[in-house]
Amino acid sequence: MQDFFNVQDIKDEYDIVILGAGPSGLTAAMYAARDKQNVLVLEKQFPGGFVAITEWVENYPGFADGIMGADLSEKIYQHAVKFDALIRSGNCTKIEIEGNYKLVYIENREKPVKCKAVIVGFGCEPKKLEVPGENKFYGRGVSFCATCDGSFYKDREVAVVGGGESAIEEGLYLTKFASKVHVIHRRDKLRASKIAIERAENNEKMAFILDSVVESINGDTKVECLTVKNVKTGETSELKVDGLFIFIGQTANTELVKDLVDRDEWGFIIADESTQTSTPGIYVAGDVRTKEFRQITTAVSDGTVAAKSCEKYINENFS
Amino acid sequence: MQDFFNVQDIKDEYDIVILGAGPSGLTAAMYAARDKQNVLVLEKQFPGGFVAITEWVENYPGFADGIMGADLSEKIYQHAVKFDALIRSGNCTKIEIEGNYKLVYIENREKPVKCKAVIVGFGCEPKKLEVPGENKFYGRGVSFCATCDGSFYKDREVAVVGGGESAIEEGLYLTKFASKVHVIHRRDKLRASKIAIERAENNEKMAFILDSVVESINGDTKVECLTVKNVKTGETSELKVDGLFIFIGQTANTELVKDLVDRDEWGFIIADESTQTSTPGIYVAGDVRTKEFRQITTAVSDGTVAAKSCEKYINENFS
Repeated sequence: MQDFFNVQDIKDEYDIVILGAGPSGLTAAMYAARDKQNVLVLEKQFPGGFVAITEWVENYPGFADGIMGADLSEKIYQHAVKFDALIRSGNCTKIEIEGNYKLVYIENREKPVKCKAVIVGFGCEPKKLEVPGENKFYGRGVSFCATCDGSFYKDREVAVVGGGESAIEEGLYLTKFASKVHVIHRRDKLRASKIAIERAENNEKMAFILDSVVESINGDTKVECLTVKNVKTGETSELKVDGLFIFIGQTANTELVKDLVDRDEWGFIIADESTQTSTPGIYVAGDVRTKEFRQITTAVSDGTVAAKSCEKYINENFS
Repeated sequence: MQDFFNVQDIKDEYDIVILGAGPSGLTAAMYAARDKQNVLVLEKQFPGGFVAITEWVENYPGFADGIMGADLSEKIYQHAVKFDALIRSGNCTKIEIEGNYKLVYIENREKPVKCKAVIVGFGCEPKKLEVPGENKFYGRGVSFCATCDGSFYKDREVAVVGGGESAIEEGLYLTKFASKVHVIHRRDKLRASKIAIERAENNEKMAFILDSVVESINGDTKVECLTVKNVKTGETSELKVDGLFIFIGQTANTELVKDLVDRDEWGFIIADESTQTSTPGIYVAGDVRTKEFRQITTAVSDGTVAAKSCEKYINENFS
């Protein structure tokens, strides 16, 4: 295995720099490296992206029995490593354009890395409720990751906010530990897939509080209860829980490239399936791209197309 | 394992009928069936599509050591079966629209299957040279599939026509058996990836005849030689080979849906990444869709999007 944290061997020039080592970035790295491009992948957290912290993946074709998210991301990581993509810990702080080239600045590294093309595969971040107590109790009862924090709630009651696929799936996962999982959703109907809803409804640990929102998260040093408001009646009530898991969607943190590429109102980078952004030589792959369905399958497709497109772009502009 | 050839248990109605059991169709089936849609997949040849007859797959993320095409397609097939998609041998002969529904006619079955949405995942077919001898010697020296026929040419000389990725990869595969593999390409430069070209150039069994086309395939009862013409000088010469493998691209056989959906000049069905065709309720996934890069990754992405889009369409139009 490569040493992810050994940043000493990052060179000054690459053909392609990929920002983000989720499924899209790693697939782009694998495809590009297999085609003999010099590839650097920079990841500011850990390889694997969102999949690495997903408990269980049941819908990536080829793994009929399901696979742990951590295992799948390790396999995709090793696939890129195998073809000699360099995958390193690093926080990109700025991208500049210098003629035909791009300069990628990395935190704690004086000289920028020069490259011919950049693939942005940042992924996206969980949305916050923006209610009192959310920041105060983050890490002390408020969580955005059931896989990370679920086991702290053995035989306790927790709440999940959200009605989509993630909310229900993660809620079901939490029933492994918690004695009760209250799903709080602002509409009168869940948005998740029928199979997920059916499973949730058949699970006696799951309870549903519909037409309702969390108004505040209350406690002394840790979460003790939630103030929940019914949006139809206007009534508020208190719900005693030890933990709150928030799954109300994603936002894209793309401030870094805001002057370089066109973004939509939520920060997602605008590109069609060609993955070409508004700036030549900058491509976008995976969850951070404007698209309808954010899945591992659509991420690996983006990675493929971005790598192939980079290759064409480099052949046309640098030979 | 389901019995692929047991067509007796095909019912009269489904939510979704998927035409073609390649990676795109099987992924669509898996996603849709997992979401409790009733799914029938019809395949006129064998499950797995083009992947099933591909020797070796090195670029499907998650299988870093590579995997036999037949094994990968079996895994994707089992994944769809697991969630109860019915995958059956069957040749669709006609699709009709009846109000909100589609009627799918199947060869040797009197009553059409009624469904709410159709996903077309036909794949595509190899292009022919259209030269004398090609049809006559098909199966007797002319082949479109190295995996299928390569082993017949142990210690013999063969030729490959084409300069793209498939031509070079399949040519390399043929060196396992053949004593010599002549690559005949009409341009002065190969179009394949650098890594493939490098490997081919380093393989002493490979030879290259550039700027040249095959004018005819000659022999008595089997292929004995080719007439090869240099397109720059106009000179013709004879090349003694026992076999000819043709890899000059793909065409889409979409006659069946020509009055239903818009197609491009090569027969590919027009749709962007939404997979929505010009007819509501008909989606297209995989190689038969108009797109730039035909890979397993892009096929499973299409399958995902088509299934999710069908689900939305059905929820909006049938409830």
